[in-house]
Amino acid sequence: MTDQTLNDYMQTRKEWFEKRLDTFLRKLPITEKLRESMLYSLMAGGKRIRPILLFATLEELGGKPDQGLSVAIAIEMIHTYSLIHDDLPAMDDDELRRGRATNHIVYGEGTAVLAGDGLLTAAFQVLAEDPLLSETLKVQLIAMLASAAGPEGMVGGQEDDLEAEEKVLNLDQLISVHRRKTGRLIKFPIEAAARIAGASEAEQMQLSAYADNIGLAFQIGDDILDITGNQNELGKPIGSDLDNHKNTYVSLLTLDGAREELAKQIDRAIGCLNEIGLGQSVLAQLANYLLHRTH
Amino acid sequence: MTDQTLNDYMQTRKEWFEKRLDTFLRKLPITEKLRESMLYSLMAGGKRIRPILLFATLEELGGKPDQGLSVAIAIEMIHTYSLIHDDLPAMDDDELRRGRATNHIVYGEGTAVLAGDGLLTAAFQVLAEDPLLSETLKVQLIAMLASAAGPEGMVGGQEDDLEAEEKVLNLDQLISVHRRKTGRLIKFPIEAAARIAGASEAEQMQLSAYADNIGLAFQIGDDILDITGNQNELGKPIGSDLDNHKNTYVSLLTLDGAREELAKQIDRAIGCLNEIGLGQSVLAQLANYLLHRTH
Repeated sequence: MTDQTLNDYMQTRKEWFEKRLDTFLRKLPITEKLRESMLYSLMAGGKRIRPILLFATLEELGGKPDQGLSVAIAIEMIHTYSLIHDDLPAMDDDELRRGRATNHIVYGEGTAVLAGDGLLTAAFQVLAEDPLLSETLKVQLIAMLASAAGPEGMVGGQEDDLEAEEKVLNLDQLISVHRRKTGRLIKFPIEAAARIAGASEAEQMQLSAYADNIGLAFQIGDDILDITGNQNELGKPIGSDLDNHKNTYVSLLTLDGAREELAKQIDRAIGCLNEIGLGQSVLAQLANYLLHRTH
Repeated sequence: MTDQTLNDYMQTRKEWFEKRLDTFLRKLPITEKLRESMLYSLMAGGKRIRPILLFATLEELGGKPDQGLSVAIAIEMIHTYSLIHDDLPAMDDDELRRGRATNHIVYGEGTAVLAGDGLLTAAFQVLAEDPLLSETLKVQLIAMLASAAGPEGMVGGQEDDLEAEEKVLNLDQLISVHRRKTGRLIKFPIEAAARIAGASEAEQMQLSAYADNIGLAFQIGDDILDITGNQNELGKPIGSDLDNHKNTYVSLLTLDGAREELAKQIDRAIGCLNEIGLGQSVLAQLANYLLHRTH
């Protein structure tokens, strides 16, 4: 697959997904301001990397994107709510996200808290109301998503991150924070797709390991881009991690060391895919894309 | 049933429930501060009126409290998260709740936001992982809970309430706000119990109507207590609605009018129970309790 084919694949899936996401939100019987605020952040663009990982895994295993649509919507709702709450003055206090004013700047803090709460709750509703998946599968996916997103997963990692603000972490500690804070919600779409497609034990194992590696790679990439990125492409100020004395892979490993670690993770990820005959798949291309991304 | 019997019933169920709630939270593999913050608000007392409505409905229909335990835990987690977020400076900015400092005062705003997010997410995990209920039932209950708690329900009502702060509402508008803001999460435990116990169509219909009436009664009672209550019993300052120019049943109907409306709702609630032979049940006693409560 060429870079152009990968780009086309990502673009096609992204557009298909966003159309359905928008339709779903517009159907909810809610007040205009709450809907607007939820849509403002949900439709703010972004690469939709989690849904795309889900669709790609599903398709490589012989499934259809439709089977993963409500899981993808649920993931993106949860990812979006976490950004809205993370940007609040009580948390990271960010006024800019993806080149636009953050939710609380536009709609006020109260509505931003509620938009986040609403997206998080609606995520489970979308999944429970999915018309295609079996009830057994839905219960499994809801339990997996709640574990990945909740106190054991993302929320726990965010708390770890809050508490680490005044400390200097070593590499193991930093990895442990990121596995929960960002890793679990990148791993979930891949594991969910494997479950939906009825993957074998061996496939599930290798795909989970692949997911762990690219989850870490994604975070290392973010830390590198905070130093080397272009403010316009990223839609947020450069060097903010440094200014905020954040623990990052770059601060621990230097820029070159972080780049080496990123390449190592991608290598490992592709090694896992090779084990199950997916070394040339879209998933391998997506791993390489993470290695070379500029935003 | 005498008042003493009702008090004993409520106390027994409350203690049984709280022990299990505590055990569940202590088992989660999370950082100490996040757990503490979640437990601080979750175990702050309160009447556990929602779980008790669920257990009572279940038992009156021939079910066992155990069958409703994870639903009850999920409801109380969601009720608690909504209080934590509601107390934030960005929302109601309250420093006192049930006689104790609010979550963000003790743990900081960032952790309070996360404790709320964590409780909301864990609620769906508890339900999905319940070992007793069938998968069909779990999917139904998760969809019902998400609808009751999310943008269509409680979160939507909270946004309505935020937007109503600068306006004067009429009675219909006030009722519409409360049906979503507090009514849906009082209705859910009753409807969930009816579903779990396999209630007939007629029973489900009357119990839903009963739930609507006591949901409204509960809110009217709150508004009355804000004027007539005892600060020590309530654990929060008296007259704060008045000071904040809030739209309440008392401000719209006068104190006597609100009392009349409260009695009317309780009458109707008991009428619904009479239709299905539950006019002398714990549920009827609970309705009367709402009429006479002092905190």
